[in-house]
Amino acid sequence: MRLKILWPGKTRSRPLKELQDAYLKKINTLEKCELIETKEARGLAEREVKKILEIEAAGLEKQIKDDYIICLFDKGKEMDSEDFSRFLEEKGSNSVNGITFIVGGFLGLAEGILMRANVLLSLSKMTFSHELTRIVLLEQIYRSLSIMHGRQYAK
Amino acid sequence: MRLKILWPGKTRSRPLKELQDAYLKKINTLEKCELIETKEARGLAEREVKKILEIEAAGLEKQIKDDYIICLFDKGKEMDSEDFSRFLEEKGSNSVNGITFIVGGFLGLAEGILMRANVLLSLSKMTFSHELTRIVLLEQIYRSLSIMHGRQYAK
Repeated sequence: MRLKILWPGKTRSRPLKELQDAYLKKINTLEKCELIETKEARGLAEREVKKILEIEAAGLEKQIKDDYIICLFDKGKEMDSEDFSRFLEEKGSNSVNGITFIVGGFLGLAEGILMRANVLLSLSKMTFSHELTRIVLLEQIYRSLSIMHGRQYAK
Repeated sequence: MRLKILWPGKTRSRPLKELQDAYLKKINTLEKCELIETKEARGLAEREVKKILEIEAAGLEKQIKDDYIICLFDKGKEMDSEDFSRFLEEKGSNSVNGITFIVGGFLGLAEGILMRANVLLSLSKMTFSHELTRIVLLEQIYRSLSIMHGRQYAK
């Protein structure tokens, strides 16, 4: 299975960045997973939401290939970890070009990106900061692959 | 509002511990919140689930006062962040003795502890590691208090 993760901008929180690196390393012991940090809109006031999302969408679009696309979205579909693992296994084996996860920036994702998704996935009914979302997603990907590979993993 | 958080054992992951300290500090700028790390069962094989949960329950029980008790539980009730904020505000103002959150250890919580809860709360349909659960809970408490206090907080 080939996994790709896209999000705009680098993770600024140092401990979250450390967790990110650690999970990516662990994931890569099980399946190939590439993280691409795309262009982040900078220097714009927060009220310029549309402009910010457009700039970030352009950066993301450059990296979107003919993959199976999973966008993280608050109001998306929720799955438990076992369902998520089965889901990834099925999509990973049926998709020639692998699976791409897309996580929005501070203000989320442009509608144009959401509309390209094969699935909108929600990690929780609750809203997490976008940097914490990255870590929770990585933990869930690692958990899913561990379940798939029959490994025991932290409860 | 008086908040208390109980869980067995210290957070071992260094970056998660760093996030924990940072969130606790931020929470305490808004409301008083005390974290008590209770006794953790050590040196027992994982198959001795019952014994482990009993030892940890005994440690938790020493700290459970006549508070409003919220236990984190996978199959508990899910709320979105706004509902969670309203919920905390209501319980916080109606409860004389404050609110106590209880997060289980590696193997979760003993049934006796779950039964003492006023509410079983689930942060996600997905299973998070118990140390990551701590951080997600702290982030949600901080987010809720920020909403309550009318502050803007990270999306």
